[in-house]
Order: sequence, then C-alpha cells, then structure tokens
Amino acid sequence: MKTLWQHCHVATMAGGKYSIIEDAAMVTAGSLIEWVGPRSQVPPANYAQAHDLQGAWVTPGLIDCHTHTVFGGNRSGEFEQRLEGVSYAEIAAQGGGIASTVRATRAATEDELFASAHKRLRSLLRDGVTTVEIKSGYGLDLASERKLLRVIRRLGEALPVSVCATCLAAHALPPEYKDRADDYIDHICSEMLPALAAEGLVDAVDAFCEYLAFSPEQVERVFKVAQQLGLPVKLHAEQLSALHGSSLAARYHALSADHLEFMTEEDAIAMAASGTVAVLLPGAFYFLRETQLPPMEALRKHGVKIAIASDLNPGTSPALSVRLMLNMACTLFRMTPEEALAGATQHAATALGMGDTHGSLEVGKVADFVAWQIDRPADLAYWLGGELDKRVVRHGVDVTV
Amino acid sequence: MKTLWQHCHVATMAGGKYSIIEDAAMVTAGSLIEWVGPRSQVPPANYAQAHDLQGAWVTPGLIDCHTHTVFGGNRSGEFEQRLEGVSYAEIAAQGGGIASTVRATRAATEDELFASAHKRLRSLLRDGVTTVEIKSGYGLDLASERKLLRVIRRLGEALPVSVCATCLAAHALPPEYKDRADDYIDHICSEMLPALAAEGLVDAVDAFCEYLAFSPEQVERVFKVAQQLGLPVKLHAEQLSALHGSSLAARYHALSADHLEFMTEEDAIAMAASGTVAVLLPGAFYFLRETQLPPMEALRKHGVKIAIASDLNPGTSPALSVRLMLNMACTLFRMTPEEALAGATQHAATALGMGDTHGSLEVGKVADFVAWQIDRPADLAYWLGGELDKRVVRHGVDVTV
Ligand SMILES: [Zn+2]
Ligand SMILES: [Zn+2]
Repeated sequence: MKTLWQHCHVATMAGGKYSIIEDAAMVTAGSLIEWVGPRSQVPPANYAQAHDLQGAWVTPGLIDCHTHTVFGGNRSGEFEQRLEGVSYAEIAAQGGGIASTVRATRAATEDELFASAHKRLRSLLRDGVTTVEIKSGYGLDLASERKLLRVIRRLGEALPVSVCATCLAAHALPPEYKDRADDYIDHICSEMLPALAAEGLVDAVDAFCEYLAFSPEQVERVFKVAQQLGLPVKLHAEQLSALHGSSLAARYHALSADHLEFMTEEDAIAMAASGTVAVLLPGAFYFLRETQLPPMEALRKHGVKIAIASDLNPGTSPALSVRLMLNMACTLFRMTPEEALAGATQHAATALGMGDTHGSLEVGKVADFVAWQIDRPADLAYWLGGELDKRVVRHGVDVTV
Repeated sequence: MKTLWQHCHVATMAGGKYSIIEDAAMVTAGSLIEWVGPRSQVPPANYAQAHDLQGAWVTPGLIDCHTHTVFGGNRSGEFEQRLEGVSYAEIAAQGGGIASTVRATRAATEDELFASAHKRLRSLLRDGVTTVEIKSGYGLDLASERKLLRVIRRLGEALPVSVCATCLAAHALPPEYKDRADDYIDHICSEMLPALAAEGLVDAVDAFCEYLAFSPEQVERVFKVAQQLGLPVKLHAEQLSALHGSSLAARYHALSADHLEFMTEEDAIAMAASGTVAVLLPGAFYFLRETQLPPMEALRKHGVKIAIASDLNPGTSPALSVRLMLNMACTLFRMTPEEALAGATQHAATALGMGDTHGSLEVGKVADFVAWQIDRPADLAYWLGGELDKRVVRHGVDVTV
C-alpha cells in the first residue's frame, strides 16, 4: 500500500535544519516514509492513493518532549488570587501551590484524570502534535503515581498520538515525608521505581533538581536505580539556581536536561559531550516572568541540541499549544524560527530517544507530518496563538481530533 | 420563538464585573436576551427549544475592538531575518516594514485580500469572538482604502460575526507623499473620507498619532472632518512617546484611545471625563518586547474603562486569539482575569459604541454568548494558547466556523 503525497513544499528538518524541498512529493508505505524528493523525480509506481496537498508546507509532526499533562484540578483560582494581590505566603498558608495539585490528583479517580487530560492533550494535537511526552509527579506515592502512569498509557491508546511515559516521582516532597527527603528518595528507589518499571508503565525517569526540591546527591541515587532498571534518565535542572544538575545529567548520559536558565558554559560542554539535549521551556519563563535567559550562546557554541516544549502544567505553564512555544522561543529567547522548529521536531525526538525514527521527514522514518496552509515555515513561529489550517497525518494516515 | 438555555453558570459581565449567576438559565427571543437569572426562577412558558449547556460557564461573546485583519502578504520573512541578525536598517533598505505591507496590499485583488483575511478572522472566531473591529490603513490611497473597506464589509456578510469598519487612512505616509504629510492629510480630509463615508463603508475614523506617523495637529484635522461627517473617532496614541494624543482624543469624545504605554495621569483624567475607553494591546507589547507598561494605576484610579484587543496586524502583533491577549493582559500588565474579561466584552463593546446592545448578558441585549467547558471564568485568562471546548451562539443561534 503505497501512497503519494504531492503539490507541497517540504521542510524535512533533516539534521535539525529546514532542509527544504520545493515542489516536493512524498511516498509513504504503510506507516513509513519510503521516498521524499522533488515532485519531478517521483518514482513511477502504482500508487494506491494520491493526495493533493494544495501547495501546503509540510513539516514533521510536532513533538512536545516535556509535559505534565495529567493532573487533578487546575490553578486558575490561585492565578486570579495572585493578580488580585493575595501574597504567595497567604496562598501557601491556604495549602496552595503544588501541594494543592497533589491533593486534587490523589483525590481524583483514574477516569477523572483521564477525562481532563484528554481535553488538554486534544488541544495540543489540534495544533499539530503527533508525539508527546507526559510525566507523572503529582501523585508522589506508589498508588497515585501508578494511577497517573496508567492514565498516560490510556491516553496513548485513546488518541492518535505517540506517548512517552516518564516517571517523575522525585518531583516534590510529599507532605507525609516532610523533613525526610532522603527517606522519600529511599522509597522511590527501593519501592516505587522497581514496581512501576516492572508493570511496564515507565519509559524514562525524571527528577527535579533544585534547592526547593531535591539535591544533586538525591537525584543521583534515583538515576542509579533507573540505570539498574535499564531506563533512560532526564532532569529538571538550573531553573532557579545553578546546582549543575545538567552536568550531573550529562554524566548519566541523560536524554535531556530541561529548563536550564542558570546553567553555565561548563554544563553546556558536558551536555554536548554526552549528547544530552537542552530542553528549553519558554512558557514557564513567560508565565513566571523570569528574567534570567538560558545561555543561548554557550549552547550554540558547544553544539548542544536545543529542544522546545510546552511544559504543560497547572502551576507554571498552562500552555496548550506547541506553536505558541515556538513564538515564545523566538520572541523571548531570540531563537530563529528554524532553530525553534528543529526544537519541536528533530531535536525533540532526540530528547525522547526517538531521533532515529521520528522528528524529520527522511526515508525509513515514521510518516508523521503536518501539511500547513502557510506561506513559509517561519509562519509557524510568527503567528501568535489561534489556529492555522492544516492536515495532520500520523503513521501515514489522516487524523482528526 | 423563545429558547431556553440552562444548566450553566453565567458571568454576565454587567457593569464590567463578573456579575456571576450560578446554576443559571437564559431565555432568548429571536436574537435578543429576554431573561437571565437563577434557573429556579425561569419564567414558565412554552419554549420552542431548550438547550442543556452541561455545566458550562457562559460569558458574552468576545469582542475584539482593535484589529488590522485585512492586509496583503505577511511579515514572517522579516521576523525571521531579524532573528537571524539582519538589522532594521538593512530590512528598511530592502523596502521592508509597513511599506512592504502597503505594496503587497495595493498589489492584491479584493478577492485575494478577502481570502487571506477570512482565514485570520476565522481563527479569531474559533476562539469565541462574535464582534470584531477591522481597520483599513494599508492602502493609503482612495482606491486601495476602498478595496480594504469593501473586504471588511464582505467579511461581515460571509462569517457569523458583527464587523465594525474603521477608516485608518491616516495610518502612515504613503511613498508618493514622501515629505508631504500635510498634503496627504489634505487628501484624506477633502477626498478620501468624504467619498468612503458617502459609500457607507465607514463606521469610525482612526489615525496614528506618533512621531513616526502624524502629529496631533494633523490628527485634529482628520477628526474635524470625521465630526462633520457624523463619524465617531478613535486614535492610536502614546505607543512610543508621549504626544498626548489621548487627551486630544478625549477632546473629540473619541470612542477609544489605543496602545497608551506612554500616557500620563492628565491624559487619564481627560479620558475618564470624556468616557473614552483605553484600549490596551498586550500582543504588540509582547511582540515588540516593550518595557514601558501602560499606567494601570492611573487608569484604575480615574475610572477609565479598559479594553483589551488583539491588534492583529502583520508587523507588530500577528495575534490570532483574543483569549491569548487576556493571558498577556494578566501576565504582562498585571490585570486581573475579571478586568481582562471585561476588557474583551463590556468595555470592548463601549469602545465600539455598542455598549448598550453588546458586551454583557442582560435583558434586551443581543444574544451573543459562549458556553465554555471550563472550571471558572479565570480559566479564560489562565490557559495559554490552544483551544478550549466551547459552544458559540450569536444572535441566539449556534454558530460553527
Ligand atoms: Zn516540567
Ligand atoms: Zn493598531
């Protein structure tokens, strides 16, 4: 079953560049790309179907490589209170912040969590996402983390999207372990991770390395267990302070280190050497009105691959669109539209360990792509919010959500 | 034909406040609201139809009171060049900036302009907009401004949205009037405005008061002609410098003064006295990475009504969503979600001279509303980009776009 797609221009994103083919065509065979090139050179064959893409620009399907899509409640009430002048201290005293999300998540049933996450994930998909990473991390006990990871698996079955499940049990200290962070890390290492991994619910292991959360030493214990379990690691690092979590991540050949506003040039050198992707999260930078920019020049100079993600979460980035993140990466971090698009395609795939099969439109890769009715690829980073006319194809098949 | 809408909560936005009715119902008769109140008090009647809104939050339809939706080309190429390090001077030397939009607009046919604007306007509508203002201003000669205004009228006929057409001939100096700004103002006053008004293409008159564009004296000549023609005025003022255009606008009882980053407290006092609405444009503030915030405290202190709009335009705010503007108004200008929502409903209606018939859900007003599947009204300003599940009703009838 070969299918021909033509009357389009393709930004293949091979090598993390636009790698444009004008007046292009693609041949898909089942779920894979069999050929891509200039339309004038399409191999003659009996195509079961031929699709006219009407002059669209075709890009790889967008990949959102860092989200916390599944959670109970939301924090718009807190957002409103803060803008009405209520202090952080008062909100914390009311039990607000991440603690409120953990309470709401623990109290919610699996079906309730599935239903609310399904809505949010559908919004990402409508904007052109075909692969998404989703983290647990609002359960913080074995049963609740299992509940989140099961919802994450169900989302991948229910919607036309490839879902990577990341266990982020080391996201925050649960209230029952107050002042006993090392004990909670023990529990993660000896009970939670082995059990959840054995149930096949975990594709990767993440942690939050920050003075507000866990120390590099505690993170390292989690990483060691992940390694023993054969699971790749990644890390929330350098968002609010410079603990060199990104260098630690590099030592463990992490897929990615994420946030990174306070990373140093030495961290960048370490990440480049280990092939660890820098995942930047401009939505959180914007929403928190941060002023410390990630060190773009050091990342570029040392050839660290840069991905862009939504960080979709209720506290610091309630972002429902990757395309908006491309604009924020350009506007706020001064990335080029090409860098930003590579960050949500090829480099995002690499950040998920899928760089060989996803993220660019090359022969042998999975046929996940979007045909956008736009004038040029930069339009994807230029338009601010809203919806662009498009056709989304996943595994060689049209999808609607 | 009376219709009942129930199982919802309503933020009526009466008086520019949420004015919430929980477990509410609404009765519409044709295109108008006949009753709104607690469901327990619905007047008994033979309703032709009864709609179950499934627990949605109902707000007035969003009103985008400042857009430049109709233009030729777009400026994503320039956006990309700048991020790749090309200087403003080089881009200007290539004929970039607003001059390139004027060239592309003049070169485009009416049907081409209609088709591209239709796509953009549909994006706004999908996000809950039921009323929009659209300005001319990229034609800058009689024939081209007429072409734009005709497209604006056609958009209002083609899509389920109420469109206000504003003539912004005094947007920039066309190349053929280089160094002859007063002559261009003469041409606007003696030829363009009288002709376009006579053709019924103009609902209001706008100008751009800025050292880059037209002086307060030149603007005043335009305003005088508008007054003679019986047309209300509004003004782009105080975006980049303090020329007190907003006080000038107030003297002419302008519907609104827009942008306003550099306005003074005296300007705010004058606007409050004349009932001139302050239209803030956070998309342009964001996109241009401005740092001078509009004087929120002075506006609040003197009771100036504040509206929020997309400023949809190719150069400084390619924004396709009003809901994203609500978030930016909160995040960047520190408005509350309630102020922001009032700014895109009741106060936006007032900025269009439609405050008595649109902008809130009150008896006798037009039945334009959105039933949002959200947890609370603040969600509209909280979620960042993407799409929220909703049902849009205009003139009492469901719309899909
Ligand atoms: Zn995160
Ligand atoms: Zn404007």
